[in-house]
Amino acid sequence: MPKLLILSREPDEYKKLIRQADLPDLEIVAEFAECDVVLGEPRIIREHLPQLPNVKWIQSMYAGVEALTDPTLRRDYVLTNARGVFGELMSEYVFGYMLAHEKKIFERFKAQQAKKWDRFESGLLRGKTLGLLGVGSIGAHLAGTAKHFGMTVWGYSRGSERSTHVDRYFHPPPQPSPGGRGGIIEFANGLDYLVVVLPRTKDTDKIVDANLLDALPPHAILLNVGRGNAVDESALVEALEHGKIAGAVLDVTEKEPLPKDHPFWVTPNLLLTFHTSAMSYPEDITKLFVENYRLYIEGKPLKYRVDFERGY
Amino acid sequence: MPKLLILSREPDEYKKLIRQADLPDLEIVAEFAECDVVLGEPRIIREHLPQLPNVKWIQSMYAGVEALTDPTLRRDYVLTNARGVFGELMSEYVFGYMLAHEKKIFERFKAQQAKKWDRFESGLLRGKTLGLLGVGSIGAHLAGTAKHFGMTVWGYSRGSERSTHVDRYFHPPPQPSPGGRGGIIEFANGLDYLVVVLPRTKDTDKIVDANLLDALPPHAILLNVGRGNAVDESALVEALEHGKIAGAVLDVTEKEPLPKDHPFWVTPNLLLTFHTSAMSYPEDITKLFVENYRLYIEGKPLKYRVDFERGY
Repeated sequence: MPKLLILSREPDEYKKLIRQADLPDLEIVAEFAECDVVLGEPRIIREHLPQLPNVKWIQSMYAGVEALTDPTLRRDYVLTNARGVFGELMSEYVFGYMLAHEKKIFERFKAQQAKKWDRFESGLLRGKTLGLLGVGSIGAHLAGTAKHFGMTVWGYSRGSERSTHVDRYFHPPPQPSPGGRGGIIEFANGLDYLVVVLPRTKDTDKIVDANLLDALPPHAILLNVGRGNAVDESALVEALEHGKIAGAVLDVTEKEPLPKDHPFWVTPNLLLTFHTSAMSYPEDITKLFVENYRLYIEGKPLKYRVDFERGY
Repeated sequence: MPKLLILSREPDEYKKLIRQADLPDLEIVAEFAECDVVLGEPRIIREHLPQLPNVKWIQSMYAGVEALTDPTLRRDYVLTNARGVFGELMSEYVFGYMLAHEKKIFERFKAQQAKKWDRFESGLLRGKTLGLLGVGSIGAHLAGTAKHFGMTVWGYSRGSERSTHVDRYFHPPPQPSPGGRGGIIEFANGLDYLVVVLPRTKDTDKIVDANLLDALPPHAILLNVGRGNAVDESALVEALEHGKIAGAVLDVTEKEPLPKDHPFWVTPNLLLTFHTSAMSYPEDITKLFVENYRLYIEGKPLKYRVDFERGY
């Protein structure tokens, strides 16, 4: 009989939803030593990893599992993360900010405050090019929304070409040459919007660096909804202060909460959103857990399994 | 040989595009008396209506043609308006403002200005209900975008049920009873967002009145992208000042430009966007003119014909 431990800051909501799902044979337990299944937040699970002698499967409530793929930690269990549930949430966020930029929502509000009936023209997403740095399940969803709005979509990914909504794919070269960046510069050259949707791994550190920012057109906007490590923060401050790109929207930063003395608080044309772009809703996560639990008790391979080496 | 007169504030762009289209037999003329076809902006055409003795067909560059359907004016020609081209533009605008509201874009910017890493939660369009007051081609397009974002869509229209993306239709009663509002109150009761996409006609005057605003839930947001006459402006100020609804986004007002002393400039939770939600792009309008011109020279019925009596 599977024994589930829930490690979350809001366990009661999860307990209620999982009880409602009425899963066969499942018992919810409170003892670390007893459980073979864990559903929880990666950072909380990490603290308790040594106290889980019988754990066979851990389902993360988040997409980002870097707290658990750290090579110093045990890997003797199956780790699955949350996938497929954040695409629609991210899409609302990304298109909210891109449309706010095109429709000049802040500028119009200023005109209103000045009591000026000012008919300056809006821009359009239609016809513009969105670049996805990372084309996993979230990127694929963003690509679908971009198509709905008549955009061209380019994708830069390690290998996958999973989204049919991506018009053109770019990949890093199979054998990285010294200083070589593969097609990433050509990719950046053609974009109106660059959306970073990468997990935190050693390969994604500062992938958005001064060269990449230089390659973006001056009217381009950067959005980072993945992890803060992907952006070289000094290079971004430089690029925004010198108008090398038109703006940035950052949901994530290298350090969170952002330190009080960080330049991002006052960098021009930079908007911060404090890691709120896609909350984990217990209803979504429970649905995904239930789906995987049914596979677990039948001894079938679980969905959304994380490759510890790759980091996602 | 058809003779076209262009009546626009930017005729050169139209001339260029129409010449490029290389339409059979078409001559672009500059004399009012010569032309049988007019392509133009309704207000400019209205001024010159008496000087167009031979006009047979007028293609409006705008959707709203109230300047030409005024019963005091001649109706001895075929009037067609611009349809099908504004849906995507309006969709960018409406979803831009709805997403800005859900994602709390203004509030987050305030937190950033105060250097506060404040993780207050965003709302979601997913699962919310959008009500369309008017379900023509623009409303139908908005309904499609709403479905992409996982919303429920209700539509209130005189008769048509043209969009398959509308989950539930409401209609006025066939015989209006004294004081009766048909299903409009029930319609308003269930909405999170009310988007007004109505033409200016005698039937749409102040359709959004105190009763309708009272029927909206207190968290509801009103967006008007049709014509200013549809909203009782005093009732809206009242509703916003007393928190009867959560906000309003007005692209149109009864008087435009909005008079300097109008209360809307300082009404709480009201955003003005100065009639910019959907510009007429010469490329879009020319495409539509070309399509209708081909029908015209073949003597076939034109598309997007306006019913003078109905007003759209």
